[in-house]
Amino acid sequence: MTPARGDHEARRTEVSEAVWRVLSTRGFEALTLRAVAAEMGATTGLLTHYFPSKKALLAHALELLDRRSQERPRRLVPADGGPPPAAGLARLRAALLDILPLDGAGRAGNRIWVGSWDVALADPELAEAHAARYARSRRVLAECVVDAQRLGELPAGPGAEGLAAGAQSFVLGLVVQALFAPGEFPAERQVELLDAYLAGLAAA
Amino acid sequence: MTPARGDHEARRTEVSEAVWRVLSTRGFEALTLRAVAAEMGATTGLLTHYFPSKKALLAHALELLDRRSQERPRRLVPADGGPPPAAGLARLRAALLDILPLDGAGRAGNRIWVGSWDVALADPELAEAHAARYARSRRVLAECVVDAQRLGELPAGPGAEGLAAGAQSFVLGLVVQALFAPGEFPAERQVELLDAYLAGLAAA
Repeated sequence: MTPARGDHEARRTEVSEAVWRVLSTRGFEALTLRAVAAEMGATTGLLTHYFPSKKALLAHALELLDRRSQERPRRLVPADGGPPPAAGLARLRAALLDILPLDGAGRAGNRIWVGSWDVALADPELAEAHAARYARSRRVLAECVVDAQRLGELPAGPGAEGLAAGAQSFVLGLVVQALFAPGEFPAERQVELLDAYLAGLAAA
Repeated sequence: MTPARGDHEARRTEVSEAVWRVLSTRGFEALTLRAVAAEMGATTGLLTHYFPSKKALLAHALELLDRRSQERPRRLVPADGGPPPAAGLARLRAALLDILPLDGAGRAGNRIWVGSWDVALADPELAEAHAARYARSRRVLAECVVDAQRLGELPAGPGAEGLAAGAQSFVLGLVVQALFAPGEFPAERQVELLDAYLAGLAAA
């Protein structure tokens, strides 16, 4: 790798950090080439060298969001290579806990994620990409549900897809509540509400 | 009322309609004085006469959203002055159905509502106003839960506040899913998922 290439990569990382800071504090509404340049202490001209337009910056922001969501430590896929949580209901719980804003990183990521909905709903391509992400996530949850049903931890009756869609809805809405009222929904409260929800599914 | 005042009111209504159209099709990200003026076929200059800044326009948009949410026909508060749905679980169901995007107006309102989260999370004052709205809504739901517990329709065990927060989370998340994947979450499917959720609460 030539120094020039290294510089380019280093600069892109620096831009990504600035984009992340703008989004997590001021949201997509404030994401402009100018705001990111100011955050970096650079000129708008330099930034347009990397991102020619606001749309390019936005696409980068959403890629970044995706990548960071994948890379952050998760209960479902432990970073230390250790075994994932057994199976069934425990696995479903881990997958849902991974979504909630239980710590600073979870809050920043979720704040950006929720903030992206306005922009994504206005652009058919972005909306489709978001819908595809949610559909993938529901499939993972549905597999956990099927497994939990097989283990007798969840009643066999209701369709796994419906339970997965319900569980995803519950958690997404809880994310929104927790972002707006962090004092009323600290981590313990979120976990308590999720556990009550899961206990309800198991008892139904 | 003088003609001049009538003109002013008529113009404000026209501006409100244009704001609503911009928000429901392109979201808060696209809400600029220029976009609203273009939507009205007016000049930006004329618009600044009514709204001197983007912040003023935004505040107006959120007021409009609030007012329209209150004014639209609701199951919980029938417009014809008829009796509201009895009590307990039926009343809880009506309140939750009122939130879902079950028709065109519900989709437009919810799309704007979800879109407002990015802007609201970036502004402590707006965030607090949103949090207060959700807290009020949870109190209404909690009253329904208490009533349903009194009627023996819901188990007395779990705290009404927790059930209300859970129900609100479930419905908000379902709104988001339905906006991104309207094909997968038509009205019938949303109602089916809500009913399965409520049945789970009752059986728990």
